[in-house]
Amino acid sequence: MDIQEKILARAGEIERIIEQYLPSEQGFQKTVISAMNYSVQAGGKRLRPMLMQEVYRMFGGRGKVAEPFMAAMEMIHTYSLVHDDLPAMDNDEYRRGRKTTHVVYGEAMAILAGDGLLNYAFETAFQAFDLAKAENVSCERVARALQVLGRKAGIYGMIGGQTADIEAEGSQSLEEKQLLFIHEHKTAALIQASMMIGAILAGADESAVAGMERCAYDIGIAFQIQDDILDVVGSTEVLGKAVGSDAKNEKNTYVTIHGIEKASADVEKLSRDALGILDEFGGEQEFLRELIVQLIHREK
Amino acid sequence: MDIQEKILARAGEIERIIEQYLPSEQGFQKTVISAMNYSVQAGGKRLRPMLMQEVYRMFGGRGKVAEPFMAAMEMIHTYSLVHDDLPAMDNDEYRRGRKTTHVVYGEAMAILAGDGLLNYAFETAFQAFDLAKAENVSCERVARALQVLGRKAGIYGMIGGQTADIEAEGSQSLEEKQLLFIHEHKTAALIQASMMIGAILAGADESAVAGMERCAYDIGIAFQIQDDILDVVGSTEVLGKAVGSDAKNEKNTYVTIHGIEKASADVEKLSRDALGILDEFGGEQEFLRELIVQLIHREK
Repeated sequence: MDIQEKILARAGEIERIIEQYLPSEQGFQKTVISAMNYSVQAGGKRLRPMLMQEVYRMFGGRGKVAEPFMAAMEMIHTYSLVHDDLPAMDNDEYRRGRKTTHVVYGEAMAILAGDGLLNYAFETAFQAFDLAKAENVSCERVARALQVLGRKAGIYGMIGGQTADIEAEGSQSLEEKQLLFIHEHKTAALIQASMMIGAILAGADESAVAGMERCAYDIGIAFQIQDDILDVVGSTEVLGKAVGSDAKNEKNTYVTIHGIEKASADVEKLSRDALGILDEFGGEQEFLRELIVQLIHREK
Repeated sequence: MDIQEKILARAGEIERIIEQYLPSEQGFQKTVISAMNYSVQAGGKRLRPMLMQEVYRMFGGRGKVAEPFMAAMEMIHTYSLVHDDLPAMDNDEYRRGRKTTHVVYGEAMAILAGDGLLNYAFETAFQAFDLAKAENVSCERVARALQVLGRKAGIYGMIGGQTADIEAEGSQSLEEKQLLFIHEHKTAALIQASMMIGAILAGADESAVAGMERCAYDIGIAFQIQDDILDVVGSTEVLGKAVGSDAKNEKNTYVTIHGIEKASADVEKLSRDALGILDEFGGEQEFLRELIVQLIHREK
């Protein structure tokens, strides 16, 4: 199997875990639950839960206590897309070839479905307390994982990044400092949470958790710069969106600031740094390393 | 002091607790934080945290571990109002005499501020883990309180009620079963969470927690029926909104289904039942009882 096939196989496993945690569509609140499940089942690469699971295993985790957090992470990622697609935000009618949630269920229900997913993400993660008891994992370890999840998803994480991103729209004088803030918070924060939570739940110490935070930062920033590069050099067909859409939106990017050569060199450096951090730790990390390289160097 | 003055004094204390937990307005994400704080600081009676604190004290709670949950509860209540006021939902431009969040900050920022408040509510509640350690309260007790908070705020609580409420709009054939579902979930659920969490954090046993859940159900339903009654008999001046607005919205209510006499009798019965449940438990409950009576029998 090449890495693409391995990732697909692993995504299938994760799909089945996520499915187990989705609420069943019944009761007077059935519509909002259907809208939530429609949004989650739209698919995607399930990269965040995949990274969480790999880091959990790398640090010796062998139980199921990370599974509710894996599902929770995907619910949080999904709610952010549902709200991002709303008419008052990016106003997108399609995502991954499917109609967006508000197009199918209406705006009011899409707002509630996003709220429902964010709330249900935490409810789902709280199920880890019961699994922890069964697997002899301390309550405190789950508490620590929750604190990381909350912080990286909120105003000091993803929501903070989205706020800065909205305010940067149309700004050609966007400074590098603000651009890196957006990438770190909007993109890297949930990757950081995923890798940190994997380490925490496996019982890794604080220095290992801090290592995963740095590693995930490098991955997230590299991923985002690569996105900017592909926006300039990719073909419409491969990329699945109009090439140069950032330029049309008059948005400053890492590439418009630094040029494509430096941007590519920085992706290389961040990629090496991320893998270098992994070298400091033992454990099974073959797939994790391949996954990171694939993520950063993707061509679409 | 009469009960109105006592409630005002208590609300002032709670105001100071909530203030301590609000995020400071700085960084590239400053705008969303300002919008969040603007929404929370719009005021209100702070009834939910007040009920939580009273039940916590009634069951012998003497520490600060409930305080982050009190702030979290008010953040959740507030985010639901911010999203409810959006153009795609109720489209309200004023609330309590102040411009609503989306009117001041724009729709995109109001959506993010609501998301930010919901997420920050959980982050804030997670601070209780640290307080618990300092006060010798078990991690498991905080975990149980979080599970109640999550469930009662989500699709099996408040969000479920809002979904059913939106779908009931314009329905004159609304059945009593669905109407009670809406009242139980949209209104009673957060009151239930408040009283249950107060009991849990004070170390009350499961039967006491179940008692608080029933007591809060009675309070919530009575509160809502009283709202329907005031909508018919109240004066515009006292009520602060156009009398008969439900009728104009063609919405079936408890009063249109049962008539005003039975509705009033049911409020009386629910009120007696709620106080009767409190009789089963000891502890200081004088203010709590007055507060409940005042809440249910308010004239505006």
